[in-house]
Amino acid sequence: MAEKKITTAHIEAFKKIVGDANVLADADSLENYSHDETETLHFTPDVVVKPRTAEEISELFKICNRDLIPVTPRGGGTGLSGGALPQLGGVVLSTERLNSIIDIDERNLQVTTEPGVITEVLQNAVKEKGLFYPPDPSSRGTCFIGGNIAENSGGPKAVKYGVVKDYVLNLEVVLPTGEIIWTGANVLKNVTGYNLTQLIVGSEGTLALVTKIVLRLIPLPKYDLLMLAPFASLEKASEAVSAIFRAGFNPSALELVEIDALKIVSSMVDSYVVPVNDDIAAHLIVEVDGNNQEVLMQEMEQIAALLEQYEAGELFFADDAQQKEELWKLRRRTAEAVKSSGYTIEEDTVVPRAELPKLIKGVKELGKKHNFHAVCYGHAGDGNLHVRIKKEGNKNSLNDPEMNAVLRELFKLVKSLGGTISGEHGIGLIQKTYMDIVFEQRQIQLMREIKKAFDPNNILNAGKIFDLV
Amino acid sequence: MAEKKITTAHIEAFKKIVGDANVLADADSLENYSHDETETLHFTPDVVVKPRTAEEISELFKICNRDLIPVTPRGGGTGLSGGALPQLGGVVLSTERLNSIIDIDERNLQVTTEPGVITEVLQNAVKEKGLFYPPDPSSRGTCFIGGNIAENSGGPKAVKYGVVKDYVLNLEVVLPTGEIIWTGANVLKNVTGYNLTQLIVGSEGTLALVTKIVLRLIPLPKYDLLMLAPFASLEKASEAVSAIFRAGFNPSALELVEIDALKIVSSMVDSYVVPVNDDIAAHLIVEVDGNNQEVLMQEMEQIAALLEQYEAGELFFADDAQQKEELWKLRRRTAEAVKSSGYTIEEDTVVPRAELPKLIKGVKELGKKHNFHAVCYGHAGDGNLHVRIKKEGNKNSLNDPEMNAVLRELFKLVKSLGGTISGEHGIGLIQKTYMDIVFEQRQIQLMREIKKAFDPNNILNAGKIFDLV
Repeated sequence: MAEKKITTAHIEAFKKIVGDANVLADADSLENYSHDETETLHFTPDVVVKPRTAEEISELFKICNRDLIPVTPRGGGTGLSGGALPQLGGVVLSTERLNSIIDIDERNLQVTTEPGVITEVLQNAVKEKGLFYPPDPSSRGTCFIGGNIAENSGGPKAVKYGVVKDYVLNLEVVLPTGEIIWTGANVLKNVTGYNLTQLIVGSEGTLALVTKIVLRLIPLPKYDLLMLAPFASLEKASEAVSAIFRAGFNPSALELVEIDALKIVSSMVDSYVVPVNDDIAAHLIVEVDGNNQEVLMQEMEQIAALLEQYEAGELFFADDAQQKEELWKLRRRTAEAVKSSGYTIEEDTVVPRAELPKLIKGVKELGKKHNFHAVCYGHAGDGNLHVRIKKEGNKNSLNDPEMNAVLRELFKLVKSLGGTISGEHGIGLIQKTYMDIVFEQRQIQLMREIKKAFDPNNILNAGKIFDLV
Repeated sequence: MAEKKITTAHIEAFKKIVGDANVLADADSLENYSHDETETLHFTPDVVVKPRTAEEISELFKICNRDLIPVTPRGGGTGLSGGALPQLGGVVLSTERLNSIIDIDERNLQVTTEPGVITEVLQNAVKEKGLFYPPDPSSRGTCFIGGNIAENSGGPKAVKYGVVKDYVLNLEVVLPTGEIIWTGANVLKNVTGYNLTQLIVGSEGTLALVTKIVLRLIPLPKYDLLMLAPFASLEKASEAVSAIFRAGFNPSALELVEIDALKIVSSMVDSYVVPVNDDIAAHLIVEVDGNNQEVLMQEMEQIAALLEQYEAGELFFADDAQQKEELWKLRRRTAEAVKSSGYTIEEDTVVPRAELPKLIKGVKELGKKHNFHAVCYGHAGDGNLHVRIKKEGNKNSLNDPEMNAVLRELFKLVKSLGGTISGEHGIGLIQKTYMDIVFEQRQIQLMREIKKAFDPNNILNAGKIFDLV
């Protein structure tokens, strides 16, 4: 386990590797890198280092590995499970200077990028070539693609197009012991040894630092249509979700937002007014996309008819690109809005899609029983429900026995429905105490041994996903 | 390393666990389980054991782990890389009795199955419910779904729908040390610890024995159209392949079959006559599918126009279900036909799609240089080219220094094109000697340490993927 302290000799050595300007130890900088978007948690690092290349990272790692200095990788700082928090002090390694898109390969529909590129920048760059990189977390305007790899991010399009893992073909990574390796090949099919690529995806920066990413791309769909459907009952809304898939539709987004969340975000974001009257319990946001406008219109009409069977209220169709963008802006800003309104504790539950009504019912019952407010929203089409909890007093779930007990109940329900505790945010620091609900000791032991194979001295993001030993 | 010999006491213990009738040690049975579809290789096990449950397998493993008895898992016996060959003797563990489809969950579009179910049986069972499990290896009529998990199988539909790994949600496995665990949850999105599920997929039966499989399903597309396009030049045909994707089309199959292979299979399979005249070098098989017949017709016409720009000859459109089935039968039987015609050595190269012309050119040059015949066919849309080689004398690549030298040249070419040595057949026994071409020592070391975490005594399919140490 990494435990040694950083000396001035270390700082000098880091400066020699990355240049003086890229080693920060002043109070303001340390404060800037002491938090991400996770609840209201703060942990101050000893130093922030900003390398530019895999080779520099390799040299840094060799020193930290030799001297047992904790290293916490950091992307855009938008994480929701504390993956970028330096709770052991030591080095925060920011990937912000690894920010080049290296190559958009239009012949093979692939892009090679560094990890510090903002997700939306990458999406727009490939869009200009008529190509599509679908995973689009709500934070896409500020998060880094490297962080998306670490958390196996999803977003609204995942329901049709899959999550990050479905696009990653190959990764260049620096191992904590300093070696620079590629995990696979730039191919669509691969069964050449164990899938190291998929082991890195979603490993939350604990196994290696990703320095180059090869993603597959797909042709950009030409058209999309967007619809908002109000429901008087949260359960009816969530029942309608699975009905859409059972009827054979394949929407490109199917989101659910509870009215309490929508009220908060509507009051904060400058947008046209979404219906938020008292008869409405939740809205579904339904998007379809494809290359044939007429077929999409038919499909949307059929989905609309289906939703009416589930007692949807008056449907609202976004007329143009601006209305669509405004509606998505509302959806994307929901987390930030409800957080600033006091719902600081966010859970990332995921269940088989048709179990969503039971999960939502369970959340509401838990709130009544334990006297807290919770709002639900998220990627209903994937069964991925974000539950935001407002708690007076302590704003954090970490080290709060009362909140831990509540969350244990919630996660036991999730497990009983065939689900798990994180769909797209990761375990990081704040969920690791619940891992025993979904895994037995043997799986955790396997994970620990994998960690040890990659990071024998446990210097890289130690104490995330599972406790230090 | 597993090395101890099997005693009569072991045989008695095995019989006690699985019943007398399910422990075979007679000469005929041992011969039946001594080969799969890999070249013409044979290795005789000491005993064949056919358990029925995970619990029985757990008990078997505990004995083998204690006494260091090699265990080779076996599914349908259709493997092409020797994964099911018991080259160390010991136990062949056949999954043929774990052959139940446990549950088709129409609410959540999932199926839970045992590994010994024949892939086509599974596909048909879900099809009856209007659902679709796309991965369809050519051997689907005899291979087991468990073997498909082991090899991360693909098949023609992979180009649109992805490979096995894109459908596996959760696995129940028995570890070589005897514990029965689940690797994940039955959900579409999951970032809860390391991805043990994807580590098992494609691990070729070396990490654990899969006993239950949860697969996601999708709605069955209503229509498909199939077209055959002859080309006078192999290179033009392969150039046309990447042009189709660059133009934004998303075919549900895009196969290439060299005319020499088609001549062989046409002469063996009872089917209508596919044009095989001397002006033709190869055929492309193009399929599109979807829910709108008219849109598909338009799409196929546009693809046809594009192929004509690449000098395609007279296009042939399959008229009805029977013609489609006959054409697919020809394609599916290609491997078996060319093998029985003396092309016993099969390689499973994969490159980025647009590099296919260079790969095909390289194969032909290698053949001229080293004086061997090779025929090419495969999943061109994925850049996955099967290369079948006919060699006088030795029918196998294993332990043939001359053939090894040829294959090293081939795989170095593949690597230089950004590709790798196996797309869907696995490394198994016959490709492991080439792993150093695509991986450095460090990646192999990581894989060995992962193997050790799962199988500390190296009893399970030892000596596959990498050498015994």
